[in-house]
Amino acid sequence: MNFGIVVFNQVEELDFVGPWEMLTMWSKFADGPTNCLIVGQTLDLIVCAKGLSINPQISFADCPPLDYLLIPGGQGTRLEVSNTVLLDFIATQARNCKAVLSVCTGAFVMHAAGLLSGKKATTHWGSLERLRALGDVEVVEQRFVQDGNVWSSAGVSAGTDLMLAFIASVAGEKAAGKVQFAAEYYPASTKYGDFENHAQAPAYIKSSGG
Amino acid sequence: MNFGIVVFNQVEELDFVGPWEMLTMWSKFADGPTNCLIVGQTLDLIVCAKGLSINPQISFADCPPLDYLLIPGGQGTRLEVSNTVLLDFIATQARNCKAVLSVCTGAFVMHAAGLLSGKKATTHWGSLERLRALGDVEVVEQRFVQDGNVWSSAGVSAGTDLMLAFIASVAGEKAAGKVQFAAEYYPASTKYGDFENHAQAPAYIKSSGG
Repeated sequence: MNFGIVVFNQVEELDFVGPWEMLTMWSKFADGPTNCLIVGQTLDLIVCAKGLSINPQISFADCPPLDYLLIPGGQGTRLEVSNTVLLDFIATQARNCKAVLSVCTGAFVMHAAGLLSGKKATTHWGSLERLRALGDVEVVEQRFVQDGNVWSSAGVSAGTDLMLAFIASVAGEKAAGKVQFAAEYYPASTKYGDFENHAQAPAYIKSSGG
Repeated sequence: MNFGIVVFNQVEELDFVGPWEMLTMWSKFADGPTNCLIVGQTLDLIVCAKGLSINPQISFADCPPLDYLLIPGGQGTRLEVSNTVLLDFIATQARNCKAVLSVCTGAFVMHAAGLLSGKKATTHWGSLERLRALGDVEVVEQRFVQDGNVWSSAGVSAGTDLMLAFIASVAGEKAAGKVQFAAEYYPASTKYGDFENHAQAPAYIKSSGG
């Protein structure tokens, strides 16, 4: 089983490393995918949105057929929605994928690759209106959402929750539990400031109480 | 203000990228540190514990005096506790740091650099006994703990909670709230499987209820 995560310049760091950590824990401790791949258009180094420098493991040209594909977000998505090489790679791979997932503004790349029309989806709170404006996406204000074989999450850190829910769906609760325990993902529930009452806070944050 | 995160071969990905994301959001949105630095012994590429390849931004030799220093964990810490170049770098920098923080098994590196003797600290649940066996650390089973200018967190994902609490302490609740909102860090509380009742589950997970 091959699971690929696409990366590009100005990808947001936690958007892909959160899911990557869950994915590779799944592989290591709970019989998850054999090949977990960081896929770039080329092997050239990539500078992420906050300055972390990474090296893709495999290029689009050498990437094997993927069973699962995840598209992170970040400032770079503003350019990548017009990158026909990347969109073709995603659209072509997606034809044989069992599921495609996006994190944060990765939803816009998924849409540009033709995978989100008529689907329920979500994105970072700061881009919800922009996703609605596309006109053909049923935007929901949840931490993550599944619509058939298309999964999407809210911003940045939400990709970790998305990935655990995805693992539970594909491999069962116990596999997801092994991953969660290995990564010690029992996050604090502290809310700093009063941002759950911010005008732009999505419904799932508002309803979590002030 | 300079905030450095030390990286080394086989560093665990989320151990440093979780805090990195919070740190750089702090810098970008809430007047956090001017320089956020990924510091390596050299500029040679580093392969992380789960296979992600990264490039340090600055070497030990060129690193400016740091106000804050964070030491992530991972399989690589087993070797780094004997790496005198790295330990000297940490010990020397720490003399002028306002605070030093560790994530997961980074606590063992902090200890080897002479910073943890007589202090309260924590680490990944799988290494709590090993931390107790050092004999001179007051090990606590919390998500994270502060003892004076030394902070430490539980495993992997706990570094994100540590970093937000640290920001709240240094810059106030509102700054931490801006970071939390920007990173949309309102994690799900779902617990998969029954690992909160695992014999090795630390006290803070057990007490969170089954």
